[in-house]
Amino acid sequence: MARPTPLSGFPELLPEQRIVEQQVIDTLRETFELHGFAGIETRAVEPVDQLLRKGDTSKEVYLLRRLHEESAEGHSGIGLHFDLTVPFARYVLENAGKLEFPFRRYQVQKVWRGERPQDGRYREFTQADIDVVGRDVLPFHHDVEVTRVMVDALSRLTDPARLGLPGFRLQVNNRKLIQGFYAGLGVAEGDATDEVMRLVDKLDKLPTSKVHELLTAEGGLDAATADRVLALATIRATDDSFVAAVRDLGVSHELLDEGLEELAALVRACADLVTDRVRVEADLSIARGLDYYTGTVFETRLDGYESLGSICSGGRYDALASDGRATYPGVGISLGVSRVLVPLLARTGLAADRKVPSAVVVAVTDEDSRAASDAVAHALRSRGVPCEVAASAQKFGKQIRYAERRGVPYVWFPASPGSEHGHQVKDIRTGEQVEADPATWSPPAGDLRPRVSTGSTNNSEEKQQ
Amino acid sequence: MARPTPLSGFPELLPEQRIVEQQVIDTLRETFELHGFAGIETRAVEPVDQLLRKGDTSKEVYLLRRLHEESAEGHSGIGLHFDLTVPFARYVLENAGKLEFPFRRYQVQKVWRGERPQDGRYREFTQADIDVVGRDVLPFHHDVEVTRVMVDALSRLTDPARLGLPGFRLQVNNRKLIQGFYAGLGVAEGDATDEVMRLVDKLDKLPTSKVHELLTAEGGLDAATADRVLALATIRATDDSFVAAVRDLGVSHELLDEGLEELAALVRACADLVTDRVRVEADLSIARGLDYYTGTVFETRLDGYESLGSICSGGRYDALASDGRATYPGVGISLGVSRVLVPLLARTGLAADRKVPSAVVVAVTDEDSRAASDAVAHALRSRGVPCEVAASAQKFGKQIRYAERRGVPYVWFPASPGSEHGHQVKDIRTGEQVEADPATWSPPAGDLRPRVSTGSTNNSEEKQQ
Repeated sequence: MARPTPLSGFPELLPEQRIVEQQVIDTLRETFELHGFAGIETRAVEPVDQLLRKGDTSKEVYLLRRLHEESAEGHSGIGLHFDLTVPFARYVLENAGKLEFPFRRYQVQKVWRGERPQDGRYREFTQADIDVVGRDVLPFHHDVEVTRVMVDALSRLTDPARLGLPGFRLQVNNRKLIQGFYAGLGVAEGDATDEVMRLVDKLDKLPTSKVHELLTAEGGLDAATADRVLALATIRATDDSFVAAVRDLGVSHELLDEGLEELAALVRACADLVTDRVRVEADLSIARGLDYYTGTVFETRLDGYESLGSICSGGRYDALASDGRATYPGVGISLGVSRVLVPLLARTGLAADRKVPSAVVVAVTDEDSRAASDAVAHALRSRGVPCEVAASAQKFGKQIRYAERRGVPYVWFPASPGSEHGHQVKDIRTGEQVEADPATWSPPAGDLRPRVSTGSTNNSEEKQQ
Repeated sequence: MARPTPLSGFPELLPEQRIVEQQVIDTLRETFELHGFAGIETRAVEPVDQLLRKGDTSKEVYLLRRLHEESAEGHSGIGLHFDLTVPFARYVLENAGKLEFPFRRYQVQKVWRGERPQDGRYREFTQADIDVVGRDVLPFHHDVEVTRVMVDALSRLTDPARLGLPGFRLQVNNRKLIQGFYAGLGVAEGDATDEVMRLVDKLDKLPTSKVHELLTAEGGLDAATADRVLALATIRATDDSFVAAVRDLGVSHELLDEGLEELAALVRACADLVTDRVRVEADLSIARGLDYYTGTVFETRLDGYESLGSICSGGRYDALASDGRATYPGVGISLGVSRVLVPLLARTGLAADRKVPSAVVVAVTDEDSRAASDAVAHALRSRGVPCEVAASAQKFGKQIRYAERRGVPYVWFPASPGSEHGHQVKDIRTGEQVEADPATWSPPAGDLRPRVSTGSTNNSEEKQQ
């Protein structure tokens, strides 16, 4: 078999990179569980008709076909999920009678999209979602809750003592605020409002003057209304001062009041969590395009990697799902684990300082005494010290290099029977070698697990260009 | 949307069941890492030509097709992996220059097979694989290593203080022993030997007399040779006494000697790990059918669930992969996590004692003081106590029932401003209520995480019938 080449859009990691991803996922899980969120997994597939309900994603769906499929459609009626929201909504409906509401869940899984691969966009990638779902009602304080949980999670990821990822900027807005503002301006509800939101969303890519032109030409707004729509979209604040800025635009509407009140409450409720690593900012340009959000909306930028777009998004939806008997309102956020990590790993060389979990390589004096080395390893493992026994009884110098190549910090030399020397352990970084007892020795806590080297994570895309 | 129904062959778990699965996976990962195995993940898809190289599995492959696929083949040239060995072999070749050999890796991932769903057989299921792979050479002691690692993992799973799963019986054999024995009997190497192995494999389902008949009719053996082939296949021992039993059959061959020596070494090397919960047994009927093993082979039965067949299998292969420059011999075992767990969960009611990770529900006195309850939760979480704040400020009796329905053991009543009472925490299982400080109180260690209830895991299939 010739050496295979990678498949575009299906990123894979080396062991020392996978340790970083695993620590990110562990940190997320730890945070979500501390907040009482239950972990679930859904199957990778959903019925095709469910996947195609949202017309705009249909082109991205991978359908499944058994090799000997005989159906007229040419597929098995199922496809790979393209997000974790569609399967979660189905899971809630399917198990509604067995779940307790409000139901807090987290879900970290791969999803698949058949779109063209590009920077930060993959055909297979991992998402980490949290949602709170109620039956018929879901108070606004859950919007605050999911925001705080995600800010907590992102803070842990950026903690220099943990992974030291770059900072995050969480941008929040509220659809009621936008829709109420537009309604107060006289823009018709429904398609007209959606079209204006869609055009305002282009502020990301187009200059303000061009969006203004589109708002009058395609959006059907007069120039003065377009001015105020754009004035709203440029308001940003890290506290609730945005309320006064919106009021100054002289628009009033009941729904606008409700939106302003919710967004102000959200920003105030997160104030105690904000640091220079993770900021929360009211950004009135955020609308989440055509997604079906009805209140709070979120986007998130990774410092130095703004060109990736939003890497953590979500919001409030009045009906995640509904069956004949009940509707299930929800609020949630989805973090693009691969979208953040794969570019970071590629550009900064971010990696663990080991290629293996082992803290110790137990040397082998000769093949006949391998059992003695195994016994040392067994004793260390019984006290939680990850270790491996050297693969062959080479000269000790070679066994030390074996450990070095893997980034393992310690090499253990078992006591030789009949020799006056007892067991010895060497820190191969310093060369220090000491007598040690397999029944009691442990490495310092910081050496027990691989560490993620954060030295170069400041190599943002700006610095590379 | 009408209430959806489950998809046959795609099992999903409720939150209290998923906690069991997560603890199983955590236990496996902990064990594998203690032994220095690096965790990797491979993409879910492989090129179709790679998936179809082993002709006998081709019918089980799910091909992927983008909705708007325009290729003549009607698929995208990729399919979902049906095991973790094919992708691992490809990963080793693709990254050979960046890996350190011998390379120890574990991999816990979903795999997919389009076969008809039945008990213990699913279309989507989780496997946990460990393998050690060398470049050009891989000493036999690694066969011992992977066996010991898996026995260690299974022992932890059966530990009553952890998950308390039913016992396991690991059956080991050696293809050199079988092939050497057959060669010593004069059975031709190659197809004739494969055919005899295939027929002997039917001892699982057919009476010995019937297999004898097949060996003479289809296998081309004379009756005396068939007798000795069957005599070999009925030898079982929990120690190396099988060597004498084989010698008594009066067959000699160099390859037989080598196989006997390896198998005896393996059984002896595992003796110190064997308990009544996890046994290791030389079983000379085990051949692993047409799989490409060349030495050690493994199968495993779950006590009380023997009808599931082998739930943990593997062996030694002289060439996991090869490119122009090197071959990569390996030895590994694959545990069918879903094959073990899904039937256990369904038949025994095995589940966690909570539906959520929370150890504490912090009650809310009234919505105006929700921030005070949030502050208590924040203090508990900062010391690693998972908790949630009650969803609404109902009467305390209702908030206690809210916790009860989720299996959460403690309810926290925040101090009311102006009241003489300080914070109080109630163990709702005993009714005991005590004053407590959010800055210092922790539940007993045993209450911190959900526990898996093992009370009914003795309800094996035999008892149910």
